[in-house]
Amino acid sequence: MINDKLPKIWYGGDYNPEQWEAPEWAEDERMFKLAGIDVATINVFSWALIQPSEDTYDFSTLDELIDRLYKNGTYVCLATATGAHPAWMAHRYPEVTRVDVQGRKRKFGGRHNSNPNSPVFRKFAAKLAGKLAERYKDHPGLVAWHVSNEFSGYDYSEQSAAAFRVWLQERYGTLDTLNKAWNTRFWGHTFYDWEEIVVPNELSEEWNGNRTNFQGISLDYRRFMSNSLLECYKLEYNAIKEHSTNIPVTTNLMGFYPELDYFEWAKHLDVISWDNYPSLDTPVSLTAMTHDLMRGLKNGQPFMLMEQTPSQQNWQPYNSLKRPGVMRLWSYQAVARGADTVLFFQLRRSIGACEKYHGAVIEHVGHEHTRVFRECAELGKELEQLGSQLLDARGQAEIGIIYDWENRWALDLSSGPSVALDYVNEVHKYYDALYQQNIEADMISVEENLSKYKIVIAPVLYMIKPGFAAKVEAFVQAGGTFITTYFSGIVNENDLVTVGGYPGELRKVLGIWSEEIDALLPGMSNELVMNKEWGALSTSYTCDLLCDLIHPEGAEVLAQYGTDFYKGMPALTVNSFGEGKAYYVATSPEARFLQGFLANLCAEQGIQPLVSAPAGIESVQRVKDGMSYLFLLNHTEGELSADIGTAVRTDILGGEELKGTVVVPSRGVLILKGALLNG
Amino acid sequence: MINDKLPKIWYGGDYNPEQWEAPEWAEDERMFKLAGIDVATINVFSWALIQPSEDTYDFSTLDELIDRLYKNGTYVCLATATGAHPAWMAHRYPEVTRVDVQGRKRKFGGRHNSNPNSPVFRKFAAKLAGKLAERYKDHPGLVAWHVSNEFSGYDYSEQSAAAFRVWLQERYGTLDTLNKAWNTRFWGHTFYDWEEIVVPNELSEEWNGNRTNFQGISLDYRRFMSNSLLECYKLEYNAIKEHSTNIPVTTNLMGFYPELDYFEWAKHLDVISWDNYPSLDTPVSLTAMTHDLMRGLKNGQPFMLMEQTPSQQNWQPYNSLKRPGVMRLWSYQAVARGADTVLFFQLRRSIGACEKYHGAVIEHVGHEHTRVFRECAELGKELEQLGSQLLDARGQAEIGIIYDWENRWALDLSSGPSVALDYVNEVHKYYDALYQQNIEADMISVEENLSKYKIVIAPVLYMIKPGFAAKVEAFVQAGGTFITTYFSGIVNENDLVTVGGYPGELRKVLGIWSEEIDALLPGMSNELVMNKEWGALSTSYTCDLLCDLIHPEGAEVLAQYGTDFYKGMPALTVNSFGEGKAYYVATSPEARFLQGFLANLCAEQGIQPLVSAPAGIESVQRVKDGMSYLFLLNHTEGELSADIGTAVRTDILGGEELKGTVVVPSRGVLILKGALLNG
Amino acid sequence: MINDKLPKIWYGGDYNPEQWEAPEWAEDERMFKLAGIDVATINVFSWALIQPSEDTYDFSTLDELIDRLYKNGTYVCLATATGAHPAWMAHRYPEVTRVDVQGRKRKFGGRHNSNPNSPVFRKFAAKLAGKLAERYKDHPGLVAWHVSNEFSGYDYSEQSAAAFRVWLQERYGTLDTLNKAWNTRFWGHTFYDWEEIVVPNELSEEWNGNRTNFQGISLDYRRFMSNSLLECYKLEYNAIKEHSTNIPVTTNLMGFYPELDYFEWAKHLDVISWDNYPSLDTPVSLTAMTHDLMRGLKNGQPFMLMEQTPSQQNWQPYNSLKRPGVMRLWSYQAVARGADTVLFFQLRRSIGACEKYHGAVIEHVGHEHTRVFRECAELGKELEQLGSQLLDARGQAEIGIIYDWENRWALDLSSGPSVALDYVNEVHKYYDALYQQNIEADMISVEENLSKYKIVIAPVLYMIKPGFAAKVEAFVQAGGTFITTYFSGIVNENDLVTVGGYPGELRKVLGIWSEEIDALLPGMSNELVMNKEWGALSTSYTCDLLCDLIHPEGAEVLAQYGTDFYKGMPALTVNSFGEGKAYYVATSPEARFLQGFLANLCAEQGIQPLVSAPAGIESVQRVKDGMSYLFLLNHTEGELSADIGTAVRTDILGGEELKGTVVVPSRGVLILKGALLNG
Repeated sequence: MINDKLPKIWYGGDYNPEQWEAPEWAEDERMFKLAGIDVATINVFSWALIQPSEDTYDFSTLDELIDRLYKNGTYVCLATATGAHPAWMAHRYPEVTRVDVQGRKRKFGGRHNSNPNSPVFRKFAAKLAGKLAERYKDHPGLVAWHVSNEFSGYDYSEQSAAAFRVWLQERYGTLDTLNKAWNTRFWGHTFYDWEEIVVPNELSEEWNGNRTNFQGISLDYRRFMSNSLLECYKLEYNAIKEHSTNIPVTTNLMGFYPELDYFEWAKHLDVISWDNYPSLDTPVSLTAMTHDLMRGLKNGQPFMLMEQTPSQQNWQPYNSLKRPGVMRLWSYQAVARGADTVLFFQLRRSIGACEKYHGAVIEHVGHEHTRVFRECAELGKELEQLGSQLLDARGQAEIGIIYDWENRWALDLSSGPSVALDYVNEVHKYYDALYQQNIEADMISVEENLSKYKIVIAPVLYMIKPGFAAKVEAFVQAGGTFITTYFSGIVNENDLVTVGGYPGELRKVLGIWSEEIDALLPGMSNELVMNKEWGALSTSYTCDLLCDLIHPEGAEVLAQYGTDFYKGMPALTVNSFGEGKAYYVATSPEARFLQGFLANLCAEQGIQPLVSAPAGIESVQRVKDGMSYLFLLNHTEGELSADIGTAVRTDILGGEELKGTVVVPSRGVLILKGALLNG
Repeated sequence: MINDKLPKIWYGGDYNPEQWEAPEWAEDERMFKLAGIDVATINVFSWALIQPSEDTYDFSTLDELIDRLYKNGTYVCLATATGAHPAWMAHRYPEVTRVDVQGRKRKFGGRHNSNPNSPVFRKFAAKLAGKLAERYKDHPGLVAWHVSNEFSGYDYSEQSAAAFRVWLQERYGTLDTLNKAWNTRFWGHTFYDWEEIVVPNELSEEWNGNRTNFQGISLDYRRFMSNSLLECYKLEYNAIKEHSTNIPVTTNLMGFYPELDYFEWAKHLDVISWDNYPSLDTPVSLTAMTHDLMRGLKNGQPFMLMEQTPSQQNWQPYNSLKRPGVMRLWSYQAVARGADTVLFFQLRRSIGACEKYHGAVIEHVGHEHTRVFRECAELGKELEQLGSQLLDARGQAEIGIIYDWENRWALDLSSGPSVALDYVNEVHKYYDALYQQNIEADMISVEENLSKYKIVIAPVLYMIKPGFAAKVEAFVQAGGTFITTYFSGIVNENDLVTVGGYPGELRKVLGIWSEEIDALLPGMSNELVMNKEWGALSTSYTCDLLCDLIHPEGAEVLAQYGTDFYKGMPALTVNSFGEGKAYYVATSPEARFLQGFLANLCAEQGIQPLVSAPAGIESVQRVKDGMSYLFLLNHTEGELSADIGTAVRTDILGGEELKGTVVVPSRGVLILKGALLNG
Repeated sequence: MINDKLPKIWYGGDYNPEQWEAPEWAEDERMFKLAGIDVATINVFSWALIQPSEDTYDFSTLDELIDRLYKNGTYVCLATATGAHPAWMAHRYPEVTRVDVQGRKRKFGGRHNSNPNSPVFRKFAAKLAGKLAERYKDHPGLVAWHVSNEFSGYDYSEQSAAAFRVWLQERYGTLDTLNKAWNTRFWGHTFYDWEEIVVPNELSEEWNGNRTNFQGISLDYRRFMSNSLLECYKLEYNAIKEHSTNIPVTTNLMGFYPELDYFEWAKHLDVISWDNYPSLDTPVSLTAMTHDLMRGLKNGQPFMLMEQTPSQQNWQPYNSLKRPGVMRLWSYQAVARGADTVLFFQLRRSIGACEKYHGAVIEHVGHEHTRVFRECAELGKELEQLGSQLLDARGQAEIGIIYDWENRWALDLSSGPSVALDYVNEVHKYYDALYQQNIEADMISVEENLSKYKIVIAPVLYMIKPGFAAKVEAFVQAGGTFITTYFSGIVNENDLVTVGGYPGELRKVLGIWSEEIDALLPGMSNELVMNKEWGALSTSYTCDLLCDLIHPEGAEVLAQYGTDFYKGMPALTVNSFGEGKAYYVATSPEARFLQGFLANLCAEQGIQPLVSAPAGIESVQRVKDGMSYLFLLNHTEGELSADIGTAVRTDILGGEELKGTVVVPSRGVLILKGALLNG
């Protein structure tokens, strides 16, 4: 449980009453009651308010706010307010603003705007976090700490350059080691003095975001920057913990946000929290995968849904309304996949600046007689009813899908073979193939203990870190099923190619050699032709993007290419290795293939779909104390049915006992408590 | 009359003889005579010529030129030459060049390149204007002053930052007021010292042109910059007026140019002038609307067509030739809509630099035996014949369409609900619906006296300035018909939302409440279904972009949405208010709807089409001394007929008496004098 | 012969063994032997290696490498290593890095990164080249010098600005002459002091790459920058020649690379070399044209193919593999068109940084059992067999096509009439029309002696330099056939329009006057209608882009426009002038027209196709000692036949005697020795 002061699914969200006047505060309180709101995230952007000058702190407004909320039954998730520095600080200490990727020194403006390697910024941020912790640590309304906000963005200042050189000295020890790791003999980049190293940006090695001359340098800068921001987080974390030891500390993450290695970050968060902002046209399985990734950051520990909009965003190109029922549906999707809170951005809409058209529980009209408020209040009531029974329940997947931020960085930075390669998209293809069949998967890191799973899928695992190949071999040896794809096993953690034949360190377990990699032009495709019918798979499937030209070295060929000069060469292989099997998918096939392929593997491993249901139904279970909570979510506008099997289950929202075919209403949700499924 | 020295439609244009040698000057004179050219705009870019150094002025060439032209029968529109500073000034006083929106300090180059808040630039510019006025104020050839050229572009220098702070102090008085106006509590942007305020650009709050974190700051910076350039204009205006009190002063505007609030500027111009550069594929009704806007800047006062090309532009991607007859046709379109001059850029083509492929009366070949010259000379003859009879004639529209630059800025800067919202385009939809039915409209500011009109249309009037809502109420109360649309009435002049329910201050007169605003994805549409047949409207029409979800509060529902979850909710309402009616169009409908809708309202108000004519005919009248000059312009390649009614009218170009059905030749023009239409 | 130490087609390529360890060097040697590799280009990016600090040079590794290679039978093309400066130099002397077109000072990074006007860079570069020449001039393995690498990129530093002013003073003598050449009276840009002149970039006159306010300034800056880099080349050239007089010196060019005037450069290269990187979808005739241009740089002298990839690139968006046989086919295409070397980038793949996915003879797998290596080794064997017989053989075209870099710059920089005008593409249309008919052409400069040719084609020759028009007149007078197109003859070498009627100085020889130029919108087209059937041409053809509206002044009209207001005006004319004819193609016609048109002209001039062959066959001959080597290249995947005529020819690869119809295998090559064709 995140904090047993409030043993239920927390309900509420970001609340910025400093933006309006006291008369509205009373209205806020009244409406929070109506909506069943019991948690408010406050103080997120109040640095300028609570520290109006270098030497002055003024907590009076905050004191009053926390007391007022607590009296009204609202707990607080207290932010440290360091997500944007005050104007006075930027004016007096220009070093706190960033230098951007183009090398331009920024002035005051925006948020997430602080140079993470500015000693001045670090000093002020840690001091503020400490003061807050000292002051509020014992307040009965305090349930969580929220450090800064959506850490993001890189800096290229001289302070960061200096810190980068120190970081490199710690990482590599000697320049000789660094020169080798970065292969600086290429283009005569050998460094003879640490001071010669400059940050990689548009003034040196990079252009157009992810283009770089030196993958090694750019990769290390991403590591360093992810760590610089993490250092800022940790400074505040430690300052808080010095006073407030038993209140959980988090910072709100952003799903697949590319710039930070959240698996590294997760080690320093007491509880994961994240902000979920799908568009009208975001595939629901992509949202599901993102929840699963967030749950996976701390090995399955339930997380906080820190932000979502009750109705619409403002920063998308086209900010469509969430259709009726969708806010509730997506809230339960989060809960189904591990969230123990349902929090909104925001409780009341701003009236000025760039987020005023972002949806809120209390809209600009100011009263409760709105569609949005009614939906919020109904959900509030339901969450009240649910009480604590779902808290701490966990998933029980038998399949792990590997996702790795450093691998993503290396792929994004790669010059060749194809700009169309999108790591998240390729991972999602495998995830979606399971999702569509009502089969659960965990999103896991390369550091995960693989033996927890029957099947491990590692799409486009381009970078193999030390020890990982051995771990895969042990996993397969012991009977596991391992799947990887084209353009995997190519480089080590420094983006240096493992010579001797692709897929490098994975070659042995896969029993193949990949000789060449063909990149297909847009509009081009090839075919993946099954050598023989295999379970759900027969005849042929289209594929595109990249085609590895591989040779079996012990592996069995299951399918081959259908056209072009490599027609007849293997496109899908399986290698028996010890007690297990290792599959190589040499190209990027259509969804129909992946569904059949994974269906076959699940069947072999005895992994059953949770339910039998048509497309549009999402199913997932949370497990607690031996009982399963089966979620059925209907993402369509019409009523759909699912077959939950012969055992009786209790619909904990509706109260009925159900079995066999159950009906899920349009955009509706069933939470069915009963015996463990597929466990 | 702009200047009674030349009581006819002035004919001529920009003339830069300093770019070539004396022998060609004699040729110029000969050809001006052949073409009937009687006005030359000179000295536009001659600063470096007439002030070759800080302390030296040399007017000898200009003296000679003005005398020479006058002797040849050509009057001059004399420019102050400050549209581009000399190289020596940029070299000696770097402060005169601008800092761009990216924060980059510019060097010498281009035009419209001066920092408007540079004291050095201001000093030199005003001094030059004064010297010119002093020297030429009594020259018999002088008919108008032309300050600088196409004022445009913003600056982000330290001088502008300092001036911005002063401007803000004047506007807001206290930082507290400013902090409230900008809602700086959002993201903790509270300013505690004026010096903490920096200009909003890509180094602080803005990106991608119109994207900003703080609408209030960016909106004020647009106001400030429009005003900074206006201050530069006024400095020159005043310097001229000190010597030359009776010659009209203007500067050439650019239609819907976004960066300057021309309604503010117009107050300081003696006569409006503007540069008209449609492309081959610009809708003719958009050009018409732009002329009407320019006429509307000074409440209907005739204006100067200061520039148009006789043949082609050079700066468009594809610079097509004006087809035969089109130059004449578009010249008369300008006259029909209020122009009392027909001036070209340019009289003779440059041979070097970036405008050498811009068309001219005298082409590079140098003689008169060209299609372009022949067409120019024929028009010159006609304008000679027309004499003074059209001068000062005015329009007589019964419909006003509101256009507001600050509203445009606020819409452009808005984060949400849809990037597809284009204010000018939405205004044009209403204008065009009238244009296609031969019904005239004035383009008016929010400061206009509405009681002049039977119908006032205010598309997407997002920003309601103080007093405007009351004015609308009075207008409708007294019997007027008011129309506005979705996303109107939302904010005040500081872009702060009017809480309590959209459309804010307009809610009462419209009798509705708009609860939510849905943004449609590209390709999505909804339907607007009539509740019953109403005049020209029946069944249903498509709509897209944005859909307000509204509730009637006294208004009658005329149409409803046809699909999506808000099917059945009102899409078009009318509220009876006093003696008048207020309509709310809750979405952006197709043209077919808008034509029927406005036809109905005109019928109700007894507003008749000027003529009955097929598509392709443009009709408009100018009125003088109780007589009407009806212009019929055929924009197609074939002959077309129109019915002008039973009263006899005189074709003042052809000399015939006409009534009933008249024929307008391909790309031809009729100007028919007769009794007032629709008055 | 490039160097008679190695009297055969050189085979090998770029080799960077400093990037790996000694054990692999032995493998390299073994595999070079297997592949028949006899030339390695070394030391290209080794500056940091051989000069580890300002005062230290260390040639030990290089000594060893050259000796080792020589012992293994591999000669060296020795680079001067100045294509990228060392990090220590950028750190100690920041002036060596560039300022970019946006005015941003760069830091250390990338390659081709040196400020060409930095005295420090120039000093170090020349010194290094001299030291290398002194040390290795007598090494028996040395066969060529390779200065720097792919010279490219412009600089906008203060050093370059100062050098630009000096260059301008030398070019123009007085400011008055400069002001006239740049037409600075336009926009009042008159310079009164040399110091007022700044470099044209995004901070002054330019934007978006080729957009500029002053074509004259930007054109001169391109000349100046091309020359600045050439000066750097020449410094090294001279430093080498001081010691090493008899070894040819080159630098690797890049085909139609826009930024450098290679015709100027070619005067200072002993032998042309270039890097050929077509994509999977590059038209083979465009590659052919580029080879011909490179051959034309030194009037037909054979050149070095310095780089091509054995398999795939890494820097294209989609890096497809060269299909089997294509590497060999394209290698022979180079030889057929004048290459006396076949060299690769690269002999062994890097394992790190941005080129690690660029193909190599030795792939990452490290052994010889790859498709790529096998194909390389087979070609190595063939080239061994061919020996010296093709060396120094030359082309024998009777048609010259003019290409001019300054003309390209002027067209690229032009503001109007159409952004769709692409000079290289328009030239290629004419080249391709001949290529498709198996008719050879030379790519020639405007300085070429035209009397070598029966037909000279000058597509879009917008800029006419002094003396060129007279040369064309003399050529036609004497019986030559000259062809030019729309938008030709417009400006002089300063981009100043030749007044008095387009096409200016070419008007007399063409016998026409072009009155106007219409730019067609995308999707628009016109028709070119033959006045009567003429040889291969009849009826009508589409045309687009630009349409000149011309009047014959003595010329005969062969075709007219079919639509729009200029229907019936001439679209194709021919003027008899002395003994010859001058054609004007007033628009950009479809390929079908150009093939017929050029077929007619060739027929008139007795120019025969080399062979009769279907589409997909490329034919070209090299001539030596009165014998012809006819190359037939089949670019398709199927077998094709060609008719080589009745004379017997020897297939020098296969050894057979052939005549009449010969079969060229899929992606195959025949080299048929025999009597001169078409000579």
